[in-house]
Amino acid sequence: MHSLLHKIRTCQPLIHCITNYVTANDCANLLLACGARPVMADAPEEAAEITAAAQALVLNMGTLSRSRLDAMLCAGIAANRRGIPVLLDPVGAGGSAFRREASAQLLEQIRFSAIRGNLSEMLFLAGLTPETAGVDSLTEDTAQAAVCGRTLAQKLGTTCIISGTEDIVTDGIRTFRIRNGHPVMKQITGAGCMLSALTGAFLAAENSVESCAAAVCAMGLAGSAAASRMSAPDGNASCRNYLIDAVFHMTDMQLEEGAILEAIT
Amino acid sequence: MHSLLHKIRTCQPLIHCITNYVTANDCANLLLACGARPVMADAPEEAAEITAAAQALVLNMGTLSRSRLDAMLCAGIAANRRGIPVLLDPVGAGGSAFRREASAQLLEQIRFSAIRGNLSEMLFLAGLTPETAGVDSLTEDTAQAAVCGRTLAQKLGTTCIISGTEDIVTDGIRTFRIRNGHPVMKQITGAGCMLSALTGAFLAAENSVESCAAAVCAMGLAGSAAASRMSAPDGNASCRNYLIDAVFHMTDMQLEEGAILEAIT
Amino acid sequence: MHSLLHKIRTCQPLIHCITNYVTANDCANLLLACGARPVMADAPEEAAEITAAAQALVLNMGTLSRSRLDAMLCAGIAANRRGIPVLLDPVGAGGSAFRREASAQLLEQIRFSAIRGNLSEMLFLAGLTPETAGVDSLTEDTAQAAVCGRTLAQKLGTTCIISGTEDIVTDGIRTFRIRNGHPVMKQITGAGCMLSALTGAFLAAENSVESCAAAVCAMGLAGSAAASRMSAPDGNASCRNYLIDAVFHMTDMQLEEGAILEAIT
Repeated sequence: MHSLLHKIRTCQPLIHCITNYVTANDCANLLLACGARPVMADAPEEAAEITAAAQALVLNMGTLSRSRLDAMLCAGIAANRRGIPVLLDPVGAGGSAFRREASAQLLEQIRFSAIRGNLSEMLFLAGLTPETAGVDSLTEDTAQAAVCGRTLAQKLGTTCIISGTEDIVTDGIRTFRIRNGHPVMKQITGAGCMLSALTGAFLAAENSVESCAAAVCAMGLAGSAAASRMSAPDGNASCRNYLIDAVFHMTDMQLEEGAILEAIT
Repeated sequence: MHSLLHKIRTCQPLIHCITNYVTANDCANLLLACGARPVMADAPEEAAEITAAAQALVLNMGTLSRSRLDAMLCAGIAANRRGIPVLLDPVGAGGSAFRREASAQLLEQIRFSAIRGNLSEMLFLAGLTPETAGVDSLTEDTAQAAVCGRTLAQKLGTTCIISGTEDIVTDGIRTFRIRNGHPVMKQITGAGCMLSALTGAFLAAENSVESCAAAVCAMGLAGSAAASRMSAPDGNASCRNYLIDAVFHMTDMQLEEGAILEAIT
Repeated sequence: MHSLLHKIRTCQPLIHCITNYVTANDCANLLLACGARPVMADAPEEAAEITAAAQALVLNMGTLSRSRLDAMLCAGIAANRRGIPVLLDPVGAGGSAFRREASAQLLEQIRFSAIRGNLSEMLFLAGLTPETAGVDSLTEDTAQAAVCGRTLAQKLGTTCIISGTEDIVTDGIRTFRIRNGHPVMKQITGAGCMLSALTGAFLAAENSVESCAAAVCAMGLAGSAAASRMSAPDGNASCRNYLIDAVFHMTDMQLEEGAILEAIT
């Protein structure tokens, strides 16, 4: 895991997030917890300029609007020009004509270092259906997520992170299966958004498939730590706080020792 | 209460919220806590399409904008066409010309299964003033809330939920007075918004006045549970978390046993 | 400190915030914690009308948009006309052309009772650079913050609040150095935004440099209380909740006794 958390805490990278308003606060606190500095700015008038000062850009399609999409395009192009890593979280891609067009535009105009979504979002981006990929979307078959991730990664020259009960991280050549995490994370709004933001910070420290895999392990470990800290009356709201708290205290050693990650073929 | 929570947790209804950005995160976590799945999408370009896939629609007028209002109108009309229950939270209705016109447009173009607000908002929608309804707005007279609720419910063919120290739920024929809840809830931002979101989930399970009353009882019980869990240094922020946590653990049996609800005439 | 908290809790002033969506929820809960009533409304169509009913206006430039800027200008002008105190939080001023123009417009068209920012934001507004003010931005030299604050306060006839390890509050004549607070506050998103909102409530109670200084002391005390309440696994998320909780319980006596404030020359 290459001391990635240490590097983030030392360099304090600025992470520009153009993200949804539902989970923006949690994403900002999670970035602060890992040692990065968040900047949330989504006006098309300034998006490119803000990105130019950042060390990574995270584009999250939740609460998408025409204006926020314009800002994403400006910022993404600026980031590509300067070699700043860009991550896409294609929230709800495929869920409406507006999102289908938006995701097509983003993929056409921006090169992404990483794309992180759930299986149905990633299948849509890969041009696959649960049927064509042989996927039973209810069981989230890890093998099929790997197929989907590899297809999309090779097509776009990116790293794909497919979140599920088991997570897949692949650059199309190397593929990792990660089994950290806890079921309660599904009941915390923005768990996916927070992972995307965290991965942005890891990409700022090191732009690689291993770095993405480390971010996924870190998030899963934080989720497990949060779940095991829950007392009887604690529910998803307390768990959300504990998850961010866990990232706040996480060390590279804990990450290295706790990561349940294996290369698969 | 008809096993409503069990039904929500089994069916996991998708609740489309077009809501304000101040409390959207809490509403999303509360929906997850009760077993529903939130989708927050407020672009006019996709609002109707997102609603078409949902089991209930919640329109919340906090942080109203022209664009968000357009999305509400599109989504509400789509919901009506498909028979999807729609709830209105008329935040600040009557508080500005913009909100007066917005609420008039919403009531004119959309049929609501339920409308939930405080007494002054509901008086405005009913075309009553504290004077014409004989209401002393400082004491939130329950009897006058019942008059206001019945008037509005009959006028619009909807269920009215009027929040206050005591809550009124009425479809114009049957009227319930509910005495769950705790004063600290007034110091939690979005307590009303969260109740509206929760009621959306209950309406998805069963579109009835009883279901609305059950949601109000559930929210009040969660508030009481949260208040009684508070330690000496806990304030409104911790209480907000405890409230969502309480919904996370609430069972139909607790709801049935804890509900302080009576039919009034 | 003149019983300011008591006055806020008695009068329950309405504080109109045109603010960013990242920290709006925390600002609203903090305002409720101190006894004020938040109203967040940022549509240009209604901003002036909402302000007219408020006892203070807080303009926060985070997640700035053209529409939110228009709302700020309308609301600020309305507040000036009626003598309602206005506070500016110039988030990221100087960080983009858009923000440079926005802050210039705001300063040109609105008279502010107070402006609160970090040293680099305030240097920008004062037309100073770290070099011209002799400031090492990494060490946040208190003496230089005082120079910057006095310059800006005199130029604009306002009170300047410069947040840092030590805080400066000055109306250009009297200058206070405040040493409350805790380093963990830097890892809570919106600590600055929350202070701005809190200062809005204090300005509603009393529009004076002393009142601004009291708000800064209160926020710092809450941060220290939150930090000392943290258990081993608690991180920035729990600390954020504890901070709001601490304001919820803070009394004027605690504020008076805990304030570490001195007049400097």
